[in-house]
Amino acid sequence: MITIREADTKDFEQIWPFFHVIVAAGTTYAYPTEMTKQEAINTWMVLPEKTYVAEHEGEILGSYYLKTNMSGPGSHVCNCGYMVSDSARGKGVATAMCEHSQEQARQLGYRAMQFNFVASTNTGAIRLWEKLGFEKVGRLPGAFKHPQEGYVDAFVMFKDLMG
Amino acid sequence: MITIREADTKDFEQIWPFFHVIVAAGTTYAYPTEMTKQEAINTWMVLPEKTYVAEHEGEILGSYYLKTNMSGPGSHVCNCGYMVSDSARGKGVATAMCEHSQEQARQLGYRAMQFNFVASTNTGAIRLWEKLGFEKVGRLPGAFKHPQEGYVDAFVMFKDLMG
Repeated sequence: MITIREADTKDFEQIWPFFHVIVAAGTTYAYPTEMTKQEAINTWMVLPEKTYVAEHEGEILGSYYLKTNMSGPGSHVCNCGYMVSDSARGKGVATAMCEHSQEQARQLGYRAMQFNFVASTNTGAIRLWEKLGFEKVGRLPGAFKHPQEGYVDAFVMFKDLMG
Repeated sequence: MITIREADTKDFEQIWPFFHVIVAAGTTYAYPTEMTKQEAINTWMVLPEKTYVAEHEGEILGSYYLKTNMSGPGSHVCNCGYMVSDSARGKGVATAMCEHSQEQARQLGYRAMQFNFVASTNTGAIRLWEKLGFEKVGRLPGAFKHPQEGYVDAFVMFKDLMG
């Protein structure tokens, strides 16, 4: 049974080990691969509007943030980012978090959700977002520098939450 | 004769009058329409990597910023935003600034330039960016709340600078 709840500061001690692995790999997130723990806390826990954790028996399996994607005339669209601990893959944690985030977004008054920069090589994530109702609405040519594949396209993905 | 040079802090006194008019209109920029002068300075002059002004005989006719669009694996793509004083429209200031920005971006080592959020109602700008080699690479459905038109689509536009 996976529980999803709002994160508090001390949760980052359990988030950092998988956050660090994911970001250092440089294959999915548009964060500097050498990001420090303090920068990570700021990016993941401080700047976003909300941060959540998915846990099972006190162990944090994944985390996501939710924030406004663009301010002013764009502020009805939110953006989320999700990370799952390597040891918790294949248990539906990403699906549970993405569904939870859509419900939270609606409650916070957002009309849509946008992912700005999904590496085209990240086929597992793309398949999952499509299954959960997101569409590719843009293709950014060569915009993602993959450490093994070189310059690959990135997708913009979008879901209307009012449907 | 229009000259383009790097901005310094005191230039914002001449930028703010047109910046304020453009942002308060809410029809083009994803900034809060009630942005204060201090927030504007931070957004336009402090956070970007570079800020430039276009001037003629000491009068500032327009300004633009240049910054990295996405960090880490996305950091070879830059983003720019341009504003032209209402009194200087039709004089080629936006064209001059956009061409200047592409040259600066190349010199700074960027491989491409991306505009993240061009309101589909902003047809003059879209026509100009297309003329200058940008392509629509994405369409964000209803992502821009126009004060008169309601929810309109926004485009993602992109130009490869290495071609």
